[in-house]
Amino acid sequence: HSLSRRRGLATVRAPATIFSALDTFPDRHIGPNSREAAYMLSELGYGSIDAFIHDTVPQQVKIAASEMTDDVIRPLSELEFNRRAKALGRDNKQFKSYIGMGYHNAVVPPVILRNVMENPAWYTQYTPYQAEIAQGRLESLVNFQTMVMSMTAMDIANASLLDEATAAAEGMVMAHITSGRKKVFFIDDGVSPQTVAVLRTRAKGFGIELRVGDATSAFDNEAETCGVLVQYPDVDGRIKDFTDLASSAHRSDALVVVATDLLALAMLKPPGEWGADIVLGNSARFGVPSGYGGPHAAFFACTEKLKRKMPGRLIGRSRDASGRPAYRLALQTREQHIRREKATSNICTSQALLANMAAMYAVYHGPEGIKRIANKVHGLTQLLKVIVGGYGFKTVNGTFFDTLTLDVTGAVKAAEAVHEAAAKAGVNFRHIDNEHVGVTIDESVGPIDFLRIANVFSSAAGSSILTREDLLPSPSASSIPLSLSRASAFLPHPVFNKHHSETEMLRYIHHLESKDLSLAHSMTPLGSCTMKLNSTSSMIPLTWPEFSNVHPFAPIDQVKGYLQVIKDLEGDLCKITGYYACSLQPNSGAAGEYAGLSVIRAYHESRGQGYRDVCLIPVSAHGTNPASAMMAGMKVVPVKNMQDGSVDLEDLAAKAEKHRNSLAAFMITYPSTFGVFEEGVRDACHIIHKNGGQVYLDGANLNAQVGLTSPAVCGGDVCHLNLHKTFAIPHGGGGPGVGPICVAEHLAPFLPSHPLLKVGGEKAIDAVAAAPFGSASILLISWAYVKMLGGQGLTDSSKMALLNANYMAKRLSGYYSVRFKNKNGRVAHELLIDFVEFDKAAGLKVVDFAKRLQDFGFHPPTVSWPIPTCMLIEPTESESLDEIDRFCEAMIKIRQEAEDVITGKQPKNNNMLKNAPHTVSDIVGEWDRPYSREDAVYPLSWLREKKFWPTVSRVDDAYGDLNLVCDCPSVAETAHNFEP
Amino acid sequence: HSLSRRRGLATVRAPATIFSALDTFPDRHIGPNSREAAYMLSELGYGSIDAFIHDTVPQQVKIAASEMTDDVIRPLSELEFNRRAKALGRDNKQFKSYIGMGYHNAVVPPVILRNVMENPAWYTQYTPYQAEIAQGRLESLVNFQTMVMSMTAMDIANASLLDEATAAAEGMVMAHITSGRKKVFFIDDGVSPQTVAVLRTRAKGFGIELRVGDATSAFDNEAETCGVLVQYPDVDGRIKDFTDLASSAHRSDALVVVATDLLALAMLKPPGEWGADIVLGNSARFGVPSGYGGPHAAFFACTEKLKRKMPGRLIGRSRDASGRPAYRLALQTREQHIRREKATSNICTSQALLANMAAMYAVYHGPEGIKRIANKVHGLTQLLKVIVGGYGFKTVNGTFFDTLTLDVTGAVKAAEAVHEAAAKAGVNFRHIDNEHVGVTIDESVGPIDFLRIANVFSSAAGSSILTREDLLPSPSASSIPLSLSRASAFLPHPVFNKHHSETEMLRYIHHLESKDLSLAHSMTPLGSCTMKLNSTSSMIPLTWPEFSNVHPFAPIDQVKGYLQVIKDLEGDLCKITGYYACSLQPNSGAAGEYAGLSVIRAYHESRGQGYRDVCLIPVSAHGTNPASAMMAGMKVVPVKNMQDGSVDLEDLAAKAEKHRNSLAAFMITYPSTFGVFEEGVRDACHIIHKNGGQVYLDGANLNAQVGLTSPAVCGGDVCHLNLHKTFAIPHGGGGPGVGPICVAEHLAPFLPSHPLLKVGGEKAIDAVAAAPFGSASILLISWAYVKMLGGQGLTDSSKMALLNANYMAKRLSGYYSVRFKNKNGRVAHELLIDFVEFDKAAGLKVVDFAKRLQDFGFHPPTVSWPIPTCMLIEPTESESLDEIDRFCEAMIKIRQEAEDVITGKQPKNNNMLKNAPHTVSDIVGEWDRPYSREDAVYPLSWLREKKFWPTVSRVDDAYGDLNLVCDCPSVAETAHNFEP
Ligand SMILES: Cc1ncc(COP(=O)(O)O)c(C=O)c1O
Ligand SMILES: Cc1ncc(COP(=O)(O)O)c(C=O)c1O
Ligand SMILES: O=C([O-])O
Repeated sequence: HSLSRRRGLATVRAPATIFSALDTFPDRHIGPNSREAAYMLSELGYGSIDAFIHDTVPQQVKIAASEMTDDVIRPLSELEFNRRAKALGRDNKQFKSYIGMGYHNAVVPPVILRNVMENPAWYTQYTPYQAEIAQGRLESLVNFQTMVMSMTAMDIANASLLDEATAAAEGMVMAHITSGRKKVFFIDDGVSPQTVAVLRTRAKGFGIELRVGDATSAFDNEAETCGVLVQYPDVDGRIKDFTDLASSAHRSDALVVVATDLLALAMLKPPGEWGADIVLGNSARFGVPSGYGGPHAAFFACTEKLKRKMPGRLIGRSRDASGRPAYRLALQTREQHIRREKATSNICTSQALLANMAAMYAVYHGPEGIKRIANKVHGLTQLLKVIVGGYGFKTVNGTFFDTLTLDVTGAVKAAEAVHEAAAKAGVNFRHIDNEHVGVTIDESVGPIDFLRIANVFSSAAGSSILTREDLLPSPSASSIPLSLSRASAFLPHPVFNKHHSETEMLRYIHHLESKDLSLAHSMTPLGSCTMKLNSTSSMIPLTWPEFSNVHPFAPIDQVKGYLQVIKDLEGDLCKITGYYACSLQPNSGAAGEYAGLSVIRAYHESRGQGYRDVCLIPVSAHGTNPASAMMAGMKVVPVKNMQDGSVDLEDLAAKAEKHRNSLAAFMITYPSTFGVFEEGVRDACHIIHKNGGQVYLDGANLNAQVGLTSPAVCGGDVCHLNLHKTFAIPHGGGGPGVGPICVAEHLAPFLPSHPLLKVGGEKAIDAVAAAPFGSASILLISWAYVKMLGGQGLTDSSKMALLNANYMAKRLSGYYSVRFKNKNGRVAHELLIDFVEFDKAAGLKVVDFAKRLQDFGFHPPTVSWPIPTCMLIEPTESESLDEIDRFCEAMIKIRQEAEDVITGKQPKNNNMLKNAPHTVSDIVGEWDRPYSREDAVYPLSWLREKKFWPTVSRVDDAYGDLNLVCDCPSVAETAHNFEP
Repeated sequence: HSLSRRRGLATVRAPATIFSALDTFPDRHIGPNSREAAYMLSELGYGSIDAFIHDTVPQQVKIAASEMTDDVIRPLSELEFNRRAKALGRDNKQFKSYIGMGYHNAVVPPVILRNVMENPAWYTQYTPYQAEIAQGRLESLVNFQTMVMSMTAMDIANASLLDEATAAAEGMVMAHITSGRKKVFFIDDGVSPQTVAVLRTRAKGFGIELRVGDATSAFDNEAETCGVLVQYPDVDGRIKDFTDLASSAHRSDALVVVATDLLALAMLKPPGEWGADIVLGNSARFGVPSGYGGPHAAFFACTEKLKRKMPGRLIGRSRDASGRPAYRLALQTREQHIRREKATSNICTSQALLANMAAMYAVYHGPEGIKRIANKVHGLTQLLKVIVGGYGFKTVNGTFFDTLTLDVTGAVKAAEAVHEAAAKAGVNFRHIDNEHVGVTIDESVGPIDFLRIANVFSSAAGSSILTREDLLPSPSASSIPLSLSRASAFLPHPVFNKHHSETEMLRYIHHLESKDLSLAHSMTPLGSCTMKLNSTSSMIPLTWPEFSNVHPFAPIDQVKGYLQVIKDLEGDLCKITGYYACSLQPNSGAAGEYAGLSVIRAYHESRGQGYRDVCLIPVSAHGTNPASAMMAGMKVVPVKNMQDGSVDLEDLAAKAEKHRNSLAAFMITYPSTFGVFEEGVRDACHIIHKNGGQVYLDGANLNAQVGLTSPAVCGGDVCHLNLHKTFAIPHGGGGPGVGPICVAEHLAPFLPSHPLLKVGGEKAIDAVAAAPFGSASILLISWAYVKMLGGQGLTDSSKMALLNANYMAKRLSGYYSVRFKNKNGRVAHELLIDFVEFDKAAGLKVVDFAKRLQDFGFHPPTVSWPIPTCMLIEPTESESLDEIDRFCEAMIKIRQEAEDVITGKQPKNNNMLKNAPHTVSDIVGEWDRPYSREDAVYPLSWLREKKFWPTVSRVDDAYGDLNLVCDCPSVAETAHNFEP
């Protein structure tokens, strides 16, 4: 009997033994089995995979097979991986952290944990660009926005940003831009250090000058001040009254930006009621674990006046083709798709899954529940103050919600005495300085935890141990100033006042889930997005408490497990990219671009060439590229593409030479966004280097490269990797993403630092994210992916991704025109199909084909990008031949339907494509269309067995943008929705 | 601010403090909040819950409120519970067991673990009696049947039994009955001891005489022999050739019953090929964890000739009203619903969820994968034999698949030396005797495990430690006799040869799930089944390895956590029932009945009254009652019911006196199956006791009793509890269930024992299940339920269950006739509605109303039981007022639709009820019905927002029973299914 690998390319050469594991991951991850792979190769006219790869990947950049084998990265079976993860989990000490600084122990309601966070039908969803098959998560994100608006008392909120620190940076830039680029931005001294660090980085690119001081006293109304950032409550726990500051700032048209805490706002007068223009923070406290720093959803809200300048994704209400209410992503066009270098933010992937968790937490607890939680947290903090006061620890901050800054000098010699006692008790407090210790209370604190905390202080002070019986009744005093107590109600909307039993909550989660198409249903072949399955085995450790309950600023001797995962992953990513060093800090692809370009700038500066600020970017590049360049303070110069889709090397050379003295960087995506491996990539890099520039390789398409070529071999100096693409972190309905950067040796010294942990290079740029390792917990997924595939499995995955795409291109090419192929007729891992001919012939647009695909149960591919008339299709290696064939059948059938429109058999404005997608409501009602109900909803016979129903018909984008409404419907509106 | 309980009855009196937990379980478990409860009370005309309970629960049996408070059972919050469970998990030592005896370390594919076992949409499903909204699990159960048929080479297989030992007992009884009750049954001496123990118990009731010996030599073809049970491979690992035995048995018309192992059958000639008539075993090895004994799905297969005698649920293929293929529960009428005391088995709830897991395992691995796994297991066993042979351990069994019985005398003084070394290495082997040790290899054994096993022997023998390098290449020899090697192929059906990547598997699981209605969608108000939500917090510990990877025969010092859970649960169940002792061994309600009645018999025997064998049972009793009585060797005498539904006390007294000298027991369900608390229950018990009988209380309806009354107070001597009803173990689409019995002090000595662990009373009856504590792992769920609700929450749950049912009865009573109420007009926790008037008026049957409810997105209530023209509706305490109102609206709307039929507006045989349920296919096609599509599928407006679609129209039962087909469709048939 043979034990060799079944799926994929069966290229494993190591002899199988009786000990070979059978639960090998490549066999589960790769879609086609070896028989199917052979069939696809033969359809393409190849006798071997090597011959196929030879024709597909340019020789110039091809690496030797020996560079990525199972000896280079040894594969673990699923079971072996699980054991390894368990062992590393044990290496993280299970301390409870009361460090605060924006991170709290979260109590995740089990029903949300299981049915959202651990549920593939939620976490494998794509960003809801296709509104008709995404009404569930759109509704949930509107709940998130509504919750933020209501808690903060602001007019509008977006559907999440990456973390509090970068959200603050977005706020600062908004102030800067809306002020007409006034240069000075003031930061209150109560703002968390990690936020300040990120602001420093971001200020640089925009040429903003930062002033730091006590905003209530030192804020100086300079003419050049565009805004001020305050934290409420501040990092030391204080609740300062910024009302006067706000008036003063507004007098000089400076914006008031407020970092805050949603739970505190259940008790505090919301910033919207005292003059805030922008309010932001981290929503993780609403049921999302710390995870050693993330992922967490930051929130961002602003006033009506500023709403069209707000960064990030915004969900709005609109209506569908039948006039029924429908949710959608609003104002899409204002961001990366259009604005490019005119954008003021590069945010793209955000934190949808975590925003959904936080929203569900609010739905579950409702206003009453949240109030109770806040009261309890505050009451316990109050009690702790009284108790530790008895031991001689003086609370420095007179006002607080959940955080005490304690002066220890009346009780112990130095703060270290407290920290030592804490270590013995298995808890962490905030290290402030020799005289001060910080303690932050959270929802998870029960009587045992409370006694443990209190007894750290009693034992440090040599007092007697407190027992349950000693606990006083809850203190009646509050340390929230009366003038800053919340008087206004919050979360009055029906959705927050209904689903409070687990049964109701489960059904609500499940009901929303049932509206959304995900990888649990069918292929989601989004070009450039690499929507492949995120394996259960890689998801499992994520929610183990050993990994999820770790504070990002916990002492490093407590996080050995995490540090090992990080070291492994950095090392493997370097092997894969061919680079020298890696930073895992950037928490999205776009954040990676920004970090990488900032590193390039720092490099030039270190060589006395800080003046280098021109960034060349092909017109085919993703919109985030120019946006990131702009944010890094560069001037974007576009480079042309050739007829065949590749970068116009002549134009590149001309521009590079023209800007020789100011050339900072060139950004290139490889394989290109047109879905081909460009032959000239090394030449392009050479041109840039010759002219003093650095090459940034956008790694969004790395899925086609692993084990076959590498960014380093292509000639680049730095690249980002979208771990949520190539390295199988789930897309989560629009995030979390992770965008680490890998760099060549000369750039390593500039990798980003962090104010609270030594990371990054010797000449590091400031932080680019709130936590030292960004969204640390989900790094486990990519670590699992790499470790379980091993070198050979990684390479096989790339090969199969290429084969699947080329087989699909072959099957479709008799029906559609594939826009770009290489000289051998091969595409890379995705294919670009142009629909312009159908528009010309019959007014059928690419979007009509896309919407019609929904009727076949498929998520449409990327539409109108990178070319407006095109569809970019990426099947990935995870899809089986069956599924690819089903997709091709659907495309071919639609081609026939289009033919009927072209030949006039079906009218141009009332046909199956224009009317797509079709809903149950459509077929239940009167039918007066020139085609049958059957043809509308069951165009192919297998749809009778497996059909996914869009819940609304085509959503009206223009209407929604004109009538921007971004919160939950009221009771009256809800009732109305049910009417036919 | 008040911190008192929000949901339910807010009857908590303990003053809330700042330390009160906020994640209190009653607040999440109970559906209505206190405002809604007050509203329902007022609708019923009560000012307080006490007044309502006073009118509902008879004073005679009411217990004092002080008997079930939070002081009696202290509630834990969800977080506190999680910590407690973690702590007890740590008290189970994580040894790896290679004990065998039918239990193996399972490798659960993560995609199945997460998406079936941990997925509420799978585990909260009800038994698939309503085929139209259960095609997903029906298909999966057909996969299970097909897998069993194919692996065993038998003609037909059922959809699971409770465990291997009880399955063997069912096999024995089948042999006994089909032989015309011949008295002798032969058991081969290679059968596992727990199986033999269960056979001993079961033989008693049927008066079967057991002979034990070597079936290949000592089988004596007595005229009175009805059958023989052999184990293949046997408990010591031997693979015996029973071909001659089979011929010999068949010559005298004795049946050959074979206990076997599905994985071994991948390499062994299947029993169906050498003469087996019945084949059974445990399927847990296919991806279901040990769980300290279960739950696991036993399988049961037989020849064509015996098929209509087969116990348990059988899924068959049939067709729907439009002639399309559809799955359904076949031959339903042959079991408890009809046969009662004529039944030969009482099996009802079985192990559907676990059968589905095993079936999914086979789907995922396919024939090739399973062959690889079997080859590996066998190869490693072979290698181990060679290695330990080198240390002087002689393998006693010449043939084997995965189990070695080792004679240790050539290597060590006594077996204990090996067990001591094993304990040091953290592994368990089988304790056979002083000279022999057993080792069984399984799928989970990797190189490290293997070395650990081998080195136990090397170190016990004082040899040098073996390292990875010492391992020989896999041995080429096989220890399976050539004549018993499998030649035939298995699992050729498409479903086992398609879904082998995780992506495909996930989609298959998800696709089946999407066809099935579960608690994740809507109320499933099944009278007598108590379909309330199974909380996530109670489900979480179940799949922790600390609980799931424990062998049922592990040494007790390794299972302290489990023993504590068991002790807690037994204690709390005694408090709740008012009884003295508890046995958790019976693994279904019906198994509990059988165990309880067997205990009663043993009690009579102990008093020299073994002749007492008459069991009085009201005609209203569940069919399992008489079936269990028959199995316990009793004669069933039916007792009449009164007009008002209660037991006819005069008839009872008359019958009790008539049978005074042989009266063994009386079985009564309380509240009765008619949904009322009978006033005379204590009188009834008194009558029985006076006449020398014992009272068995069927606890299926205990949900109405907890904290308000108790089986003991009612006057019974023993009761079973369906943990899957009152104590919130999920129904899992038809199991697992658990049916512990609680008994008064005088019956405690007779509680069941187990051959491998001292459990039960001093004069214990033999085992009633394969494992000492039955389906031990899911006891965690009921333990969680009780511990998190606490005394008050348990009582509040009962009260709310009563209030919900009475509110529903009130709302419906203007439209339907509620058949039985007490003298105050109150029902208990469920209500019985009679539809006979509609049949008379317009030929509309109760089933038409039930099927029409599917169109409204509800699972129909229990239909035609306990009265053929009735529906039994149980909302449970978990349902919210909103959901109850939605259900009532649906019922009222259907009443209006029925009126149209009665008044002739709609034809009698072509109306919305008769044609229900309606599918998408119905409305897509031509429409020639006398009502609109809208009225068919959207009869109420909220269905436009939330609609569940039955995937087939009404299923034809008669056709399916006539054309009994119980395996997966072939390729050709599958293709045909897609045709319109
Ligand atoms: C080519 C390319 N670059 C960059 C990005 C931005 O990555 P992220 O969405 O993680 O910010 C994308 C996202 O789709 C992309 O396709
Ligand atoms: C009244 C009654 N008794 C006994 C049983 C049998 O329980 P089980 O299905 O667990 O065997 C049932 C099952 O519904 C029941 O309703
Ligand atoms: O299966 C039941 O009858 O509940």
